[in-house]
Amino acid sequence: MIIQVIPTAQQAQGFDFSGKTAIVIDVLRATSVITTALVNGAREVIPVKSVEEAQDLYSRSDAANTLRGGERNALKIEGFDLGNSPLEYKKNTIESKTIILTTTNGTNAINNIKGADEVLLACFRNAEAVASLIARRNDEAIQRHGNLPGLPQFACIDVIVVCAGTEGRFSLDDGLCAGMLIELLKQKTEVETDDFGLLLHHYYLENQPNLFKALAGCYHLKRLFTLGFYDDIQFCLETNCVATIPVVREGKIVKI
Amino acid sequence: MIIQVIPTAQQAQGFDFSGKTAIVIDVLRATSVITTALVNGAREVIPVKSVEEAQDLYSRSDAANTLRGGERNALKIEGFDLGNSPLEYKKNTIESKTIILTTTNGTNAINNIKGADEVLLACFRNAEAVASLIARRNDEAIQRHGNLPGLPQFACIDVIVVCAGTEGRFSLDDGLCAGMLIELLKQKTEVETDDFGLLLHHYYLENQPNLFKALAGCYHLKRLFTLGFYDDIQFCLETNCVATIPVVREGKIVKI
Repeated sequence: MIIQVIPTAQQAQGFDFSGKTAIVIDVLRATSVITTALVNGAREVIPVKSVEEAQDLYSRSDAANTLRGGERNALKIEGFDLGNSPLEYKKNTIESKTIILTTTNGTNAINNIKGADEVLLACFRNAEAVASLIARRNDEAIQRHGNLPGLPQFACIDVIVVCAGTEGRFSLDDGLCAGMLIELLKQKTEVETDDFGLLLHHYYLENQPNLFKALAGCYHLKRLFTLGFYDDIQFCLETNCVATIPVVREGKIVKI
Repeated sequence: MIIQVIPTAQQAQGFDFSGKTAIVIDVLRATSVITTALVNGAREVIPVKSVEEAQDLYSRSDAANTLRGGERNALKIEGFDLGNSPLEYKKNTIESKTIILTTTNGTNAINNIKGADEVLLACFRNAEAVASLIARRNDEAIQRHGNLPGLPQFACIDVIVVCAGTEGRFSLDDGLCAGMLIELLKQKTEVETDDFGLLLHHYYLENQPNLFKALAGCYHLKRLFTLGFYDDIQFCLETNCVATIPVVREGKIVKI
């Protein structure tokens, strides 16, 4: 399997995803929020780019079963039902609901991916589940194509990891999670990465005993810390505690 | 001083460089080539984007004092005087000459930077010289503005390091050199970096005893190795052996 890593949502624009599995990571906090929403029983999450688009879609939806969530400058949007803290997405609030979500980076990253075979969402909380699924598919593909002479085993599934970033710039929390995903995949199957993947894998291996320390100088984490989102940060850095894998199907995010 | 690092030449397009000092790095091999050309007495290097542009400019130049250099797919361009190996740029060939240079990544990175206060070129060979210059300027700026209350000391000079990349993707050789530059600057002055800079600085600190090993899995290095450019690689990974700093002035690269 070949894994490429793209540092920001902006760089994913105009990129050719055809024939690839895309994995979007926005640890702080969109993909952690969406994973948590689906774990806690949300029917689906619809990622939209702008507040206006969210309001427009909401006005055409069944209000009793629809919630608006998201952030601008890390804070809840005025008039919305939910912010961008995964801790708000509790079962009694969101079960069976459709959630229209707009965030500054994560939902843009998801919507910037065009033409991929499949778009999955990952975060620290579901990284093991995502890695297991991808590795299993890779092994199945190798078995299916096993008799083709000359086909390198690692070329069976191509994965592009898109780190959402913050304000158009690479965010180390996303990169550390990408490094963890690469390590989990390497434990399960044959993996080759691009230079950025090499770098992130190395950083994860060096820092896996203490993810907090690894992100101590990270711009986005410091910003959330300053705003008082301590519990969110702790929640988003918990690893491999849920088995739910969000997947994008016709513009909506559901459980795979 | 605040240092931001941009992973590829493509990402530098459309970026706002106003008020910033830009440092372009293309270790393998454009910025190593240009540095070497100026060390060995070239009058100037004119970076152009296309082979056609190079030919057009050459046809309007004094042929006795002008050479065409560069590469496509790492190899010398047909009809050109020089390739993209720094070892070709010897004193007896290039002294006092104008060199029109076109490479796939490095010259694009240089030409993609618009509006910077100054554009400098760095590689492993001149990293110490570049860091010394930047640190000195930062200290001078701090002294000039020292009496302004509330001005943070590190905010005096803003630096954006542009890693040229390879085929539109981040290349670890450029990133390792950016990490080295950050370390050299940290030894001399107060430095704050973005998340990408943090990551590269960490990778450099971990790997500084053996740069070759740090780049073992690097796509571009492997490609040059396969093509037989062993001596080029060795030359480009020699650190801090020249004091020449290339600077872009009105579209031409000269010694600072």
